[in-house]
Amino acid sequence: MKALVYHGPGKKTLQDRPMPVISAPGDAIVKMTQTTICGTDLHILKGDVPTCVPGRILGHEGVGIVHETGTGITAFKKGDHVLISCISACAICEACRKGMYSHCQSGGWILGNTIDGTQAEYVRIPHANTSLYKIPDDANEDALVMLSDILPTGFECGVLNGRVKPGSTVAIVGSGPIGLAALLTAQFYSPAQIIMIDTDETRLAVARRLGATGTIAVNGADTVKSIMMATNGQGVDTAIEAVGIPATFELCQEIVAVGGTIANVGVHGTKVDLHLERLWSRNIAITTRLVDTITTPMLLKTVETGKLDPLKLISHRFKLDDIQIAYDTFVRASETRALKVLIEV
Amino acid sequence: MKALVYHGPGKKTLQDRPMPVISAPGDAIVKMTQTTICGTDLHILKGDVPTCVPGRILGHEGVGIVHETGTGITAFKKGDHVLISCISACAICEACRKGMYSHCQSGGWILGNTIDGTQAEYVRIPHANTSLYKIPDDANEDALVMLSDILPTGFECGVLNGRVKPGSTVAIVGSGPIGLAALLTAQFYSPAQIIMIDTDETRLAVARRLGATGTIAVNGADTVKSIMMATNGQGVDTAIEAVGIPATFELCQEIVAVGGTIANVGVHGTKVDLHLERLWSRNIAITTRLVDTITTPMLLKTVETGKLDPLKLISHRFKLDDIQIAYDTFVRASETRALKVLIEV
Amino acid sequence: MKALVYHGPGKKTLQDRPMPVISAPGDAIVKMTQTTICGTDLHILKGDVPTCVPGRILGHEGVGIVHETGTGITAFKKGDHVLISCISACAICEACRKGMYSHCQSGGWILGNTIDGTQAEYVRIPHANTSLYKIPDDANEDALVMLSDILPTGFECGVLNGRVKPGSTVAIVGSGPIGLAALLTAQFYSPAQIIMIDTDETRLAVARRLGATGTIAVNGADTVKSIMMATNGQGVDTAIEAVGIPATFELCQEIVAVGGTIANVGVHGTKVDLHLERLWSRNIAITTRLVDTITTPMLLKTVETGKLDPLKLISHRFKLDDIQIAYDTFVRASETRALKVLIEV
Amino acid sequence: MKALVYHGPGKKTLQDRPMPVISAPGDAIVKMTQTTICGTDLHILKGDVPTCVPGRILGHEGVGIVHETGTGITAFKKGDHVLISCISACAICEACRKGMYSHCQSGGWILGNTIDGTQAEYVRIPHANTSLYKIPDDANEDALVMLSDILPTGFECGVLNGRVKPGSTVAIVGSGPIGLAALLTAQFYSPAQIIMIDTDETRLAVARRLGATGTIAVNGADTVKSIMMATNGQGVDTAIEAVGIPATFELCQEIVAVGGTIANVGVHGTKVDLHLERLWSRNIAITTRLVDTITTPMLLKTVETGKLDPLKLISHRFKLDDIQIAYDTFVRASETRALKVLIEV
Repeated sequence: MKALVYHGPGKKTLQDRPMPVISAPGDAIVKMTQTTICGTDLHILKGDVPTCVPGRILGHEGVGIVHETGTGITAFKKGDHVLISCISACAICEACRKGMYSHCQSGGWILGNTIDGTQAEYVRIPHANTSLYKIPDDANEDALVMLSDILPTGFECGVLNGRVKPGSTVAIVGSGPIGLAALLTAQFYSPAQIIMIDTDETRLAVARRLGATGTIAVNGADTVKSIMMATNGQGVDTAIEAVGIPATFELCQEIVAVGGTIANVGVHGTKVDLHLERLWSRNIAITTRLVDTITTPMLLKTVETGKLDPLKLISHRFKLDDIQIAYDTFVRASETRALKVLIEV
Repeated sequence: MKALVYHGPGKKTLQDRPMPVISAPGDAIVKMTQTTICGTDLHILKGDVPTCVPGRILGHEGVGIVHETGTGITAFKKGDHVLISCISACAICEACRKGMYSHCQSGGWILGNTIDGTQAEYVRIPHANTSLYKIPDDANEDALVMLSDILPTGFECGVLNGRVKPGSTVAIVGSGPIGLAALLTAQFYSPAQIIMIDTDETRLAVARRLGATGTIAVNGADTVKSIMMATNGQGVDTAIEAVGIPATFELCQEIVAVGGTIANVGVHGTKVDLHLERLWSRNIAITTRLVDTITTPMLLKTVETGKLDPLKLISHRFKLDDIQIAYDTFVRASETRALKVLIEV
Repeated sequence: MKALVYHGPGKKTLQDRPMPVISAPGDAIVKMTQTTICGTDLHILKGDVPTCVPGRILGHEGVGIVHETGTGITAFKKGDHVLISCISACAICEACRKGMYSHCQSGGWILGNTIDGTQAEYVRIPHANTSLYKIPDDANEDALVMLSDILPTGFECGVLNGRVKPGSTVAIVGSGPIGLAALLTAQFYSPAQIIMIDTDETRLAVARRLGATGTIAVNGADTVKSIMMATNGQGVDTAIEAVGIPATFELCQEIVAVGGTIANVGVHGTKVDLHLERLWSRNIAITTRLVDTITTPMLLKTVETGKLDPLKLISHRFKLDDIQIAYDTFVRASETRALKVLIEV
Repeated sequence: MKALVYHGPGKKTLQDRPMPVISAPGDAIVKMTQTTICGTDLHILKGDVPTCVPGRILGHEGVGIVHETGTGITAFKKGDHVLISCISACAICEACRKGMYSHCQSGGWILGNTIDGTQAEYVRIPHANTSLYKIPDDANEDALVMLSDILPTGFECGVLNGRVKPGSTVAIVGSGPIGLAALLTAQFYSPAQIIMIDTDETRLAVARRLGATGTIAVNGADTVKSIMMATNGQGVDTAIEAVGIPATFELCQEIVAVGGTIANVGVHGTKVDLHLERLWSRNIAITTRLVDTITTPMLLKTVETGKLDPLKLISHRFKLDDIQIAYDTFVRASETRALKVLIEV
């Protein structure tokens, strides 16, 4: 079968690989129909993810059709249309029992990381009973690819952890795909304001189309001033960090209101300064989270009933044969205006 | 009347001052019967609290008897025995409505800070309706002085923010009075383990008497190793920071389990490092809080019914005339083994 | 001044009454600009509310202008535009401290019940600091009258108590003004389905305009069958009872899903059957609540930012001189298609 | 093997039955070491549980040793000491994902009900990965039998649903084993008062030994008066119904405070009166629940660390050969003073 294989920093090739095989009773083999590229895939290609070694098939998102099932699979059968969760969960271990699938002792984020992933014609899914989700016959497959990772990430790590509420004020720092996923799902709770912050005016224009009540183009100290002006000098109840660098986390600390929450979504490579000398008395919370995808069933319902339109996050479409072009388009997002790029297998 | 007055860094005198007077309908004048000294008073004397200017009467804790009431006082009358909250709350402003009395727009921590305090024969209490608490006739006044500040602080900032639960594991970093207050109130929730950490063996011995299930004397990197050994290598569900320096906050980051909480109680003077490069994916929460004293009515009930014995926190007793000796005793705690020192007015 | 006075069951007259006067430091006198009629006013006129005695001025809703303030009033001054809460709250007592303003020891629902109310040119508001809400200068006064009672009632008793969530299923039994208020505010949480149930097709048509995803006209046992069909045989996560008779509460018990909630909003005059022989094992919750109006500040924000349009609930407008016609129109709602009737003072 | 078999109302025999066999990949066969009898077993013998047909082996509690495992079992191996949950849970279906194991689509309460149970030498456990719990080598097996059903039932249905809190007041109506299980686990949260109510003075004496702060022997209307006196006329924050008849549910409605919760634990055979004409405005919640056993891991920790001593619930011990005597002893509890009777297999 065709698969996109990682060969060390900066190197990947679309090549022929043997079909995956069932290796445990809980496995299923899924024939991919759609996949996509994540910012994390780019991290791997930079060499930032040491658990992902050369030879690995990349990718942890997508939808497909069940092709074969292990003897322990009771929830699916050959031919079922399924959504693949980026997180594999045994549902048995202590972490899974607490709803913390991301830290499953024999799962978590393993697809396209410690085992072969979804940017291929077929993929083996461990713990398939609790890592795949049946999708309705009439569902829009393209839309549902956005439910593998980006929408639960924006929702769980940003919106739920950030305790977004009716009437509250929200700032989302970073208007890339993940920030936009938080923007879309924050609207489930009808906050009074959702202010998107980015350096890129094009992305802010997208944010306004997707429901931002205000946007701020970052340029120095005025950013803080602008947010304070927009919030009667109080700052925001929820600051969602969707970039992953010290400067944006710093900004969140300056704009969070007394009693507010900083919900970190960004993947950070270095430590940051935490200004406890100012924040110790301000009754705030800071949260971190690797997406657990425990809200996937709920998100599926919101898509089915039209409360959420994930297609808004898709900017480009490619065939698997053109996946290298898809990566190139995704990498040069500021130029290509790429959000999520869909890849038909 | 006699009062302890702050005269700038390092200077304080017990001197004669005019009686306080009612200056607003919501005021009450309380004749003090018992007061105490807080770590924050020492901060003031180091010159670390710029809002507290020379000439101020110190102190924000104590019990007493209502001496005079403003026209707006409906909850108390002359002669009532009352507990004074360290936080004054109007109950009207947006912060108070959210239960965040600490950030009351016309209150908060003002006693012995921006207005005259309780280390005196009389004190004026603004917003008295919602900043005093009636105490039962047969109550132990000494015990209740501990409910002005230290017990709600340990409970709200440490235990509640730290989400201590039946069966969970807790580490409290710092075994001074505030850490011990967290220790006492953490036991409301029957955690499986409460490990106290300090450099001072004497304080750890006190901690064991007060209910710690384990204690660790800090000596370098072994501290982390000891905690990991005590928790099956998982770290603690709740790490309570009760010191206020970078090293102890750093320790909390190393020992908090996946999915756990770091509840900051300490007063920090400088920024700290936050290791988001490691913590971003560990589903943790970090909380800060200035005590709101909204749990005071509940704490009063636990004292009344014998679930909490605040006397355990009192090590020394003085008369107001000897308050300078009381301060000296409290400052040299490692030597005097002082916990809280009670001052009879 | 002119006021609508209750004279015993079935009797009320618009007559001249002395101006109200400040009788406690916490009082304010408000000059009414807009008021409205509540279902509860009709209950009083039926003689169902023994606490309301002849001679009482009716009404507990409205907006106006502060005319005079007691010495304890710090939050308002003469000339302020204010919203009057149907619940008066001292903010001091144990119930108020718990956010349960409805059971304030010296307040609660007293306006137009145990003290004179708002269907008059002037009204005395006790505990005014915490029972009035400043309204923005540019606010639509008509809209805000809906925030005195009906919207917080639908929201607190129905939506919050009913734990409406993104993706969940909701049925609202009763499509009168209170059911519609629940319908409007349930949408804050983006449930997948909101099914309105009523006997009156006209009201269901209004419900569809206001956001219901489905409507069911009640006709015998088929109602349950229809709801089961609409919810894949599972029943609804939240059933909101907004009528107040045994039959509608019975219906809620039949349609609530395993793990679901029945949130009672209706005012009941008789006991009902609770089918514990079937429900004991179904993991449900049943809640009751007299509105606390603690969400009023939040609701004001949702109106200001356009997330909620209360004008949708107003069907008719009258002058105070025509208040008897207003009552008549409101009573004959099935005929007049009245929702809320606004009365300009 | 020997097993206690149900033969229709009133009839049961200890007889020889074939060994159970693995019938699905998720099954495990457990060799029983200890079991016990539940009030539900008595319900079955009265003919009240139509899903349990003649020929069924009774029992849904116990500990044992894993004897054989299906191909899908990853969490256990032959020889492991295990606790058997009374609830079997697939961990995959929608109910299980919500933590509502009691309503698992292919599990729930099936042991000794719709499939053969634990009052036998061996038992087949479906969904064993998530329905068994490993027990420490040094654990007291007798104690842990109490964690199969009675302690999670008292805790989840009574204490958690009843929102017991530090400083709150609790009444438990019914001082049988299930009420006592609620009493033991309510103490995890340090309520100010736990008042036990029963008709049997002997059971109340046990309750006092197990931590009740007060007890009331039921005798007519004075019961309500006594509770009101014990709670300053306010009633209790939490009323736990642990009997299952209309009279006790009625009592709960009379003693629950404004803002309180009635947590139903009892198994009811008939409908009850719900006094909404009085309760509609009292801000209460009523909850029902079939135990989910999701707190079993937590309860195991509290036993391990000595926070909970389940042995207090065991009054008698028998061998499997004497199980008929054990039933007889358990049925005549008022005479034999039986609480839980342990049966060694």
